[in-house]
Amino acid sequence: MLRKGVQTILASRFRDFETAAGRRRPSAKRCMASLAQAMAPEEPSGPSVHCSIPGPQSQQLYRELNDIQQAGSVQLFADYEKSAGNYLADVDGNLLLDVYMQISSMPLGYNHPAMLKALTDPHNQKMIANRPALGVFPNRDWPEKLKSILLRKGVPPPGFSHITTMMCGSCSNENSFKNIFLWYAEKQRHGAPFSKQEMESCMVNQAPGSPRYSIMSFEGAFHGRTLGSLSTTHSKYIHKIDVPAFDWPIAPFPRYKYPLESNERENRQEDERCLAKADELFVRYSKEKDTPVAGVIVEPIQAEGGDNHASPEFFQKLQKLVKKHGAALLIDEVQTGGGPTGKMWCHEHFDLETPPHVVTFSKKMQLGGYYHIEELKPKQSYRVFNTWMGDPSKLILLEAVVEVILREKLLDRVTQVGDYTLGQLKQLENELSSSINSSRGRGTFIAFNCASSELRDATIKKLLKKGIQAGGCGDKAIRLRPALTFTQQHADIFLDSLRAVLKE
Amino acid sequence: MLRKGVQTILASRFRDFETAAGRRRPSAKRCMASLAQAMAPEEPSGPSVHCSIPGPQSQQLYRELNDIQQAGSVQLFADYEKSAGNYLADVDGNLLLDVYMQISSMPLGYNHPAMLKALTDPHNQKMIANRPALGVFPNRDWPEKLKSILLRKGVPPPGFSHITTMMCGSCSNENSFKNIFLWYAEKQRHGAPFSKQEMESCMVNQAPGSPRYSIMSFEGAFHGRTLGSLSTTHSKYIHKIDVPAFDWPIAPFPRYKYPLESNERENRQEDERCLAKADELFVRYSKEKDTPVAGVIVEPIQAEGGDNHASPEFFQKLQKLVKKHGAALLIDEVQTGGGPTGKMWCHEHFDLETPPHVVTFSKKMQLGGYYHIEELKPKQSYRVFNTWMGDPSKLILLEAVVEVILREKLLDRVTQVGDYTLGQLKQLENELSSSINSSRGRGTFIAFNCASSELRDATIKKLLKKGIQAGGCGDKAIRLRPALTFTQQHADIFLDSLRAVLKE
Repeated sequence: MLRKGVQTILASRFRDFETAAGRRRPSAKRCMASLAQAMAPEEPSGPSVHCSIPGPQSQQLYRELNDIQQAGSVQLFADYEKSAGNYLADVDGNLLLDVYMQISSMPLGYNHPAMLKALTDPHNQKMIANRPALGVFPNRDWPEKLKSILLRKGVPPPGFSHITTMMCGSCSNENSFKNIFLWYAEKQRHGAPFSKQEMESCMVNQAPGSPRYSIMSFEGAFHGRTLGSLSTTHSKYIHKIDVPAFDWPIAPFPRYKYPLESNERENRQEDERCLAKADELFVRYSKEKDTPVAGVIVEPIQAEGGDNHASPEFFQKLQKLVKKHGAALLIDEVQTGGGPTGKMWCHEHFDLETPPHVVTFSKKMQLGGYYHIEELKPKQSYRVFNTWMGDPSKLILLEAVVEVILREKLLDRVTQVGDYTLGQLKQLENELSSSINSSRGRGTFIAFNCASSELRDATIKKLLKKGIQAGGCGDKAIRLRPALTFTQQHADIFLDSLRAVLKE
Repeated sequence: MLRKGVQTILASRFRDFETAAGRRRPSAKRCMASLAQAMAPEEPSGPSVHCSIPGPQSQQLYRELNDIQQAGSVQLFADYEKSAGNYLADVDGNLLLDVYMQISSMPLGYNHPAMLKALTDPHNQKMIANRPALGVFPNRDWPEKLKSILLRKGVPPPGFSHITTMMCGSCSNENSFKNIFLWYAEKQRHGAPFSKQEMESCMVNQAPGSPRYSIMSFEGAFHGRTLGSLSTTHSKYIHKIDVPAFDWPIAPFPRYKYPLESNERENRQEDERCLAKADELFVRYSKEKDTPVAGVIVEPIQAEGGDNHASPEFFQKLQKLVKKHGAALLIDEVQTGGGPTGKMWCHEHFDLETPPHVVTFSKKMQLGGYYHIEELKPKQSYRVFNTWMGDPSKLILLEAVVEVILREKLLDRVTQVGDYTLGQLKQLENELSSSINSSRGRGTFIAFNCASSELRDATIKKLLKKGIQAGGCGDKAIRLRPALTFTQQHADIFLDSLRAVLKE
């Protein structure tokens, strides 16, 4: 139905071209731009819910999907042709204000004209159809694309000029670990070449070629689900149970008391407790366990683990500690990167004395990858390598995203709308302190806790009935992960619904 | 330049529409189909080389890229807009017959009209722009797409009705490992629920929650480069050195003497030696090392490791052995899957008594993933899960690829052209037995050995000067990984060049 609709609009646009300029031929470029405009549906003025969610069509499709795979995590089937901006359309005709945005992975919402336009460009289509092995045969425009998109002024974290592209968050972290291990081993080797024993023992997974190095992570962290990254993930048991893991050190991550203003002293002590434990683990894993810590991975805000924040001072001291032990600091910005905290990278809020060694990204950035300091560039080729090494088709989309972010100054809006939303949540928290507490956030990367897990789950369900698609994290938190195009008007719709639900 | 060219062609096609049918409006669909046709450049009649490769422009771009990342593996910069079918255009104006095809990842060659056409479809463009979290909010057409593409008659390996989508080969193997571990643990647990101890210990990477299970792999194997899959990779030290690995068992893979016809007895003994060792490792890792083998991963042809083949009998006996020990058999078809051996899946050549437990894929299939038997479907959701769970944009491309493979009966052609090429190589081997030996292959998935590593490297370089882009594998092998559209005429160009190089 809708496809036919688009074609009709398109055909009428061709007619416009013909009549407006005396049967003038439309240029391919105008044709494509018009097509993108015609394709982008308009955002509705508010949510509308006609049936329970998942509705009958979603339920039917669930049964079909569950016949061929484990589909238990599916919440609804969407209709992406009808989704628009901040609104997700489902297959049963409901329109939901989406403050969760595909687990925080959609930067501009649904069917953004700039992204659709990029896909109508014949040059881009060829780049998508001819996916190269980027590490061996990159296209002629690849260095320029990396420089003009991922290294464009305003995009990389301050101080970074080196970039490795990957495909997803897990593999970005996995390959960063490898990059850190190579760098750490190189330091131990003091420039000596690989020994015969190292070259032979690594082929059978034994030391010294496969050394007993580790990556320190934090309790409550989430860094992915492949076997290396899963060894640094500690948010929910269902992610980890029955899967072998490396015995790597795990430090406590600060758990603050809210509101922050009235708990400063306690929270500072909490920082010190966690840092002292991390310091101790550095020593213990090196001396007692013969598994030296080559790097430390940390989220600037622990997202899956419950939106746990730590202070700039915590991160500054952590960086000093990591340096003291000769390890690398890896900041995992897979969920925080790309603008939702009001800066492109959340760790920009921390005022670190030097850039961290590595910053990983994915989700809103469309493709995975990591920025690293020059010192981490491997000396030899083929050590951080795979067939595809990322995906040019995602860089095409990111190009459109970055252009919109910068042109429309979306990060300023994120900050304003985020401050507004958090302020309103804190008010609501004062009114209804038995229901919600601990509102916290940077930009629109906001969360609050419910009184219990059960109340949290019930609140999300009731919000859905009112047309709000939200997400949970940790034990009791509800997290907001809207698109960067989320406005105060959207925030008000969310806040009104939340107030109504909590008062029910 | 070329973009302008495409636009001119497009504009003239619009004019055709207008005049041919009395100023008739072009439909969007016809407009798009014509665009795809106009976009697809024609294959040249043969290679042409104008300068050394990498040429001056490639060298300049290399310096630019190497400033921002380790670019030492780059061989040349390509011009994908000018590449066509089996021919790769480089940025310096050379046209190369590509028998390596982006490390075996391009099924139909460059700029195939069917793939370009899929990308001009506005519906598909929307699916690409609105990338969902497939495990939570799939699009309404997702079950149907999976069924009509990945489970379409002629596509899945015989006996499979379950599919999990991923993004690349490494993560397909990693997630298969997890899937196998869950299944294995479930069997040990005899249906009991998770214990409190398991739920707690897994959060800190300790047994019993993070059990000491292992995946057995083979010497010379390549299964990827993330930390789990890298623990099963044993092809080259540079892939592994300085990176921690799991202490998992590694069995010998048969190394046959060629020609097979005159070494049957010895090669059968080689099979038995390897199987006996695998049997022994099952016991040793269970009894002595307390690290039971939950699964065995094997390539049907060890590709990166040197195109090492094993007999159907070897695989049949391996499957029996794996069953005997209660483990799962995972066949890694990342490089062999999607048609290059003349069947969609190489293990179809082996006549196994039952389907293996898991078959992983990526590369020519455009997206990653794995087929698994129903028994392996996890009982709980969120255990094999990540944000994206694959990528609909790749399924759109695979849809076009599968349609062409089936409509044009490309697998038959692969078999014919492959048989012809292998026959010719064997002749050449008889003529020049001091230079090349051990020609082997299935379909166009063919390799031969050179007398030494140095001679292999020199041969690849000389072939490149004659306009042939080939690839090496193992110590001494040259491998052919052409597109499925490779014809006898292409094979003759390759064979003539090879003969000339070897006679030089």
